[in-house]
Amino acid sequence: MRLIRLGPIGSEKPAVLVDDDTYVDVSDVVPDFDGAFFASGRIAELPAIVAGRTPQPIGDQRIGAPFARPHQILCIGLNYSDHAAESGMEVPSEPILFTKSPNTLQGPNDDVIVPKGSVKTDWEVELGIVIGSPASYLADEAAAEAAIAGYVVTNDLSEREWQIERKGQWSKGKSAPTFNPAGPWLVTPDEVGDVLALDMFLDVDGVRRQTGSTATMVFSPAFIVHYLSQFMALEPGDLINTGTPPGVGMGMNPPQYLHGGEVLELGIQKLGSQRQRVLPYGG
Amino acid sequence: MRLIRLGPIGSEKPAVLVDDDTYVDVSDVVPDFDGAFFASGRIAELPAIVAGRTPQPIGDQRIGAPFARPHQILCIGLNYSDHAAESGMEVPSEPILFTKSPNTLQGPNDDVIVPKGSVKTDWEVELGIVIGSPASYLADEAAAEAAIAGYVVTNDLSEREWQIERKGQWSKGKSAPTFNPAGPWLVTPDEVGDVLALDMFLDVDGVRRQTGSTATMVFSPAFIVHYLSQFMALEPGDLINTGTPPGVGMGMNPPQYLHGGEVLELGIQKLGSQRQRVLPYGG
Repeated sequence: MRLIRLGPIGSEKPAVLVDDDTYVDVSDVVPDFDGAFFASGRIAELPAIVAGRTPQPIGDQRIGAPFARPHQILCIGLNYSDHAAESGMEVPSEPILFTKSPNTLQGPNDDVIVPKGSVKTDWEVELGIVIGSPASYLADEAAAEAAIAGYVVTNDLSEREWQIERKGQWSKGKSAPTFNPAGPWLVTPDEVGDVLALDMFLDVDGVRRQTGSTATMVFSPAFIVHYLSQFMALEPGDLINTGTPPGVGMGMNPPQYLHGGEVLELGIQKLGSQRQRVLPYGG
Repeated sequence: MRLIRLGPIGSEKPAVLVDDDTYVDVSDVVPDFDGAFFASGRIAELPAIVAGRTPQPIGDQRIGAPFARPHQILCIGLNYSDHAAESGMEVPSEPILFTKSPNTLQGPNDDVIVPKGSVKTDWEVELGIVIGSPASYLADEAAAEAAIAGYVVTNDLSEREWQIERKGQWSKGKSAPTFNPAGPWLVTPDEVGDVLALDMFLDVDGVRRQTGSTATMVFSPAFIVHYLSQFMALEPGDLINTGTPPGVGMGMNPPQYLHGGEVLELGIQKLGSQRQRVLPYGG
């Protein structure tokens, strides 16, 4: 099943995709795809509801993030061995955790704004995990798999000077407004199948910059969810960005960053694709 | 004015303190002290409401955190020069940012649980800032002062092994359940007066471990709020822990940590005091 949220910013309605271009509105039975929804287990009721309704065309409706603003956005750093190499860092022996402000979440095709004063805004296509049930001190990776509601494409936008050169702790360069496009769909694990065999790409102005596959992840989604649950309590609806494959701007020679005027296109096999205009601050 | 929230976990009611032992319930006019409340500016209506009502004794009611779970909890590291020295780190040239999971927030006297597997759980008395209005790209420190709803005592509990020895990024050691007691009161800036002249203390089992004053902060609350607003959008109700004075367990010779069975007492002049039992995981 593929979940989607349609409508203007702040008043998106939850819906279920029938095929790539049509959907069924479920907003009369489910207020939103938020923490309470995932915790309720009502996702299991949706297929029967969808089967009894007539699909509508998406048309030119705005697509929001496919889930409501989460309690927290967690991110795993350097989780693709080739990306660690291009960043000049070692492959970590256990997951590196950092965070993004939850209000960075936005729709997959909404404009990205280069922050005021930024000179090193960079792109990162990532597989996002959305948590489906409370997860604290999970016993093993099987329990972690059972706690995953689904997967989503995210763009973990990053200001490299703020992340790396402005006194430690990466969160400072990860939390600017518009820095976490997500979607278009939240795809349930049964529909994804093997989550460790998904092709990924990111283009800047039509030029392929990132090419990868979840097959080269260092730590799998189940490993990550089990691991994080030992350090903190994950909540239904929480988002975990699981790291980016090679090809970020910081790793180019010379490095190349976003200044506004670019178009980003990115996607992951089975999870759909995003398209963002990049605008300069105030532009 | 001093705001307080009284009642069982998850169903606290907002109230205003009249003196240290009595309060006026305002839950019929204000649903909660949450982001929507701070954004509404209705805090200005409270004195007139309180003046027309009869105070009640607090008695043995549980005190919750004096504001609802925030959108984000931000923390400033090494913001007291003496604490930087005891940690073996340099005084930073600009604020060090890290984060805590918002679900760490709890009442000032609720039990603290040493996380499963922890061997280095530590204490940190801190001045907390609660944001009162949306704050993005603030023009100057005066605008930052105007965006502060009030101040609160917090205990920024920390697992030092997870923070420092488990692959970078401090958030990993800052987000365990029960790791952010806050309160008892949210005190408005007019009632605090000079926020840079407040004595602070923390006792472990009746022995004074932290003694300090906000007078020795490296970066002031107004500086911090203005600074952070350049990197991310702060929201009404967001909490910022502003760093701890000397005397944490990690800085002792030999280091001393919490294992369960201890009692923590901590406070800040004009902001009240907290008392927590420390329990071992599962105990």
